Amino acid sequence: METLYIISINIIFSVFAFFCTYNIIPHLKSMFIGANLYGKDLNKKSENKIPEAFGVVIGCTFLITIFVLIPVIFGRHMLQNDTTLFPHSEFVEMLAALLSICCMLLLGFADDVLNLRWRHKLLLPTIASLPLLVVYYINFNSTTIIVPKPFRDFFGVSVNLGLLYYVYMGMLAVFCTNAINILAGINGLETGQSLIIAISILIFNLIELSGDCAQAHLFSLHFIIPFISVTFALLKYNWYPSEVFVGDTYCYFAGMTFAVVGILGHFSKTMLLFFLPQIFNFLYSIPQLFHFINCPRHRIPRLDKYGTLSPSYAEYNNNNISTIGKICLKLFSIFKIVHIQEKSVGIIKCNNLTLINLCLLKMGPTNEKTLTVTLLIVQFVCSLFAFVIRYPLASLFYDV
Amino acid sequence: METLYIISINIIFSVFAFFCTYNIIPHLKSMFIGANLYGKDLNKKSENKIPEAFGVVIGCTFLITIFVLIPVIFGRHMLQNDTTLFPHSEFVEMLAALLSICCMLLLGFADDVLNLRWRHKLLLPTIASLPLLVVYYINFNSTTIIVPKPFRDFFGVSVNLGLLYYVYMGMLAVFCTNAINILAGINGLETGQSLIIAISILIFNLIELSGDCAQAHLFSLHFIIPFISVTFALLKYNWYPSEVFVGDTYCYFAGMTFAVVGILGHFSKTMLLFFLPQIFNFLYSIPQLFHFINCPRHRIPRLDKYGTLSPSYAEYNNNNISTIGKICLKLFSIFKIVHIQEKSVGIIKCNNLTLINLCLLKMGPTNEKTLTVTLLIVQFVCSLFAFVIRYPLASLFYDV
Repeated sequence: METLYIISINIIFSVFAFFCTYNIIPHLKSMFIGANLYGKDLNKKSENKIPEAFGVVIGCTFLITIFVLIPVIFGRHMLQNDTTLFPHSEFVEMLAALLSICCMLLLGFADDVLNLRWRHKLLLPTIASLPLLVVYYINFNSTTIIVPKPFRDFFGVSVNLGLLYYVYMGMLAVFCTNAINILAGINGLETGQSLIIAISILIFNLIELSGDCAQAHLFSLHFIIPFISVTFALLKYNWYPSEVFVGDTYCYFAGMTFAVVGILGHFSKTMLLFFLPQIFNFLYSIPQLFHFINCPRHRIPRLDKYGTLSPSYAEYNNNNISTIGKICLKLFSIFKIVHIQEKSVGIIKCNNLTLINLCLLKMGPTNEKTLTVTLLIVQFVCSLFAFVIRYPLASLFYDV
Repeated sequence: METLYIISINIIFSVFAFFCTYNIIPHLKSMFIGANLYGKDLNKKSENKIPEAFGVVIGCTFLITIFVLIPVIFGRHMLQNDTTLFPHSEFVEMLAALLSICCMLLLGFADDVLNLRWRHKLLLPTIASLPLLVVYYINFNSTTIIVPKPFRDFFGVSVNLGLLYYVYMGMLAVFCTNAINILAGINGLETGQSLIIAISILIFNLIELSGDCAQAHLFSLHFIIPFISVTFALLKYNWYPSEVFVGDTYCYFAGMTFAVVGILGHFSKTMLLFFLPQIFNFLYSIPQLFHFINCPRHRIPRLDKYGTLSPSYAEYNNNNISTIGKICLKLFSIFKIVHIQEKSVGIIKCNNLTLINLCLLKMGPTNEKTLTVTLLIVQFVCSLFAFVIRYPLASLFYDV
């Protein structure tokens, strides 16, 4: 009953947040352009200035929504005279989650304004997730995982990962914050994929509300409902043709929100299932990200003279590719997920290794909107697949 | 013993933070100028670009220092097997404080980049202080104040302010964040005054560590020691002639840090004693801030042809000054703290109402460094005065 009440108030606040965000964004465009926060849309012929880093706006409306939600969520306990009954451990989780998200918002915005280096992008989310790990340690400190049935002969029924589990959670925060950022670059993709992931989490939380871990899933809902509302408001302006860009700020903010609810809601493994396209994109990008082969500054598709998008390519001198790079390209060739051409003796060209370019390779020249929709359908199908793994198939691997 | 151990580790971490901040600042100058975050020093003849908003850098090193301090502060409790003994209420305070500071850092940086409007500058600190007030409500909810002896005939020994006390604390956060921001504009003043206030708080906390509220003062020390170290690193570059400007980011960050330790350390009234110059400057500025008389965009002193600074003036048409404005100017004239000249019939000129201009009125043309030093001496003397009120004089007003 109380759960229903809290969720209802959350929805009301979130609807209000949606309208505020939706109304405020157009007014801020000139302010962002005036502050030099704009870019040109590289996939369009026009030279219009598109304001950037609007993630910071919706991040702020998100934080404000949750700040005013706090007295609602803890209202019953706050009115009790006996403060020893106050659920401090829940409140600690709430604050730690907000702190981590707020930190990422700050760092994301700093990145958009100052163009931070790659090492900062890896170091900073790790530091921002520290309070989260401390809270996990204090409130749960459960680092034991159940081993899937097929592997039990080797590892036993359960394995205590200990410190390794914390390393895993820290890396999850780094992965989530960067994974959305590297599957980006065409109108509406960052917000679209985040929205599908968020709605998948919402459905999962609602299903699990009747389960044993209801409290943890309710916690996740506190964050996911306002997140969906503000993301939806942003998507309205970020959809093709984009009036505003979301910036690294949004990708970091969205990623950290997912990491936070995954870790403190105790569904970090299910969470990763919703990230299948991002995981594939990350693995596929590794040769370029880790500089096994050369990585150009932009890997977004190429706009051709017909106004459609084609895969972008990078050129390599065969002698400059490391052995690992060669192995990766060979492997990708076997799976037919790369297009390599010999340009002249010793010089090859190869499509930039992103899921977006891979889609274009398979589909041929496509206009931007169709490409975004295709990628979002992939995201949606992966979410369906995730639910199939999580529910019917889980019984094959675990005792349900 | 444990207190001493925690303070020692804090000092070691803070010294390390000082050196990191001190070394990192010069490397970031070009990055900030590249991002269009620079200004010209209006009190100098040179046209050099001075990078701005460096508060965000030291704010981040401050946050990181405290993040790594958390496991030290709560280490003993984290190693206990019985998690019910963990001091959740202390940990909640820590996280709420960090959240409020991180929010203000984000808003300050957004202000520096985007030039927010005045209403945001008042609204945003209020929202950022919400988690703080919730924590105060949960952990203490003591809204009763002891009435000073001379007023006890009217109000009794103590008065329960109830909700009003929360309004007061919210306003304290707004006041602190803006008070430093309006006593600013000459090299080294923002960092200098914050350093003196912070050292005053440090001394006050150390004195009170042997008292009844040792825990609250230790809490304040967790924040004030790293704050002093990073501020000192920034002062090295912000001192006359400034190589970097601190931006609104720093003023908001410093103000919120003070508000946080004042509120959660339970010494918000003593805290205000350390803000005497800022309170005077605020009261003196009211006619311009609230637009009773016209307020120009910049109120900083005027650079004359000899390279010294003189007070800046604003011109008014006598008919356009509101009645309240006239009363204020009359009042200031009686106390001889304003210089009004009749320029022509119906047109008057009057010095801009800031403590800086008032100092210049009394001292005559002064070079910038001397002016900063003078204002810092005023701040220092006010801190001494605050200690006299807090200790020997308090017995006149309260039963000690």
